Amino acid sequence: MSEAVILINPFTVPAGKLEQAIAYWERHRDFMQQQPGYLSTALHRSLRPDATFELINVANWASEEAFYQAAAKMRAALGPCEVEGLSGDPALYRIIRT
Amino acid sequence: MSEAVILINPFTVPAGKLEQAIAYWERHRDFMQQQPGYLSTALHRSLRPDATFELINVANWASEEAFYQAAAKMRAALGPCEVEGLSGDPALYRIIRT
Repeated sequence: MSEAVILINPFTVPAGKLEQAIAYWERHRDFMQQQPGYLSTALHRSLRPDATFELINVANWASEEAFYQAAAKMRAALGPCEVEGLSGDPALYRIIRT
Repeated sequence: MSEAVILINPFTVPAGKLEQAIAYWERHRDFMQQQPGYLSTALHRSLRPDATFELINVANWASEEAFYQAAAKMRAALGPCEVEGLSGDPALYRIIRT
């Protein structure tokens, strides 16, 4: 089944690591936006620096399969996260109410 | 300063409480969409039930001030959350990269 999905990835950003975290995200965006099924992405930054998730990525993909294939290629190509203490918690979503 | 903001609220939903959590969200949406500055909202549900955040709300508001005023009115009108174990972690965001 091929139906569009939304990746939401809330990032916990250690103090003083925001610029590194954004640069890390940009490298992964540059890779992912070349992959089949990529539709769009948007990195959200909290207005307050003490938010639990200072960065949240929201991206649109053509299908669940397309996202998982791209993510596996990305991990193989870019390796583990080099920003100490930066952690994400990505999951795929669909809108159920508006 | 009046500039549009994005509310993102990841919800931790206890096992067996999804339908109650959605009904809770709907009551709050019904209140919030009547308030000045409300633009739109979308409740996202994870494809997998074991996601850390099974529900994530993403809403657009005309300004930070409009959202905080509406949220204060909502809390006064609707009271504390009656769904045991349901917790949100709302924060306001702006898009910094696409």
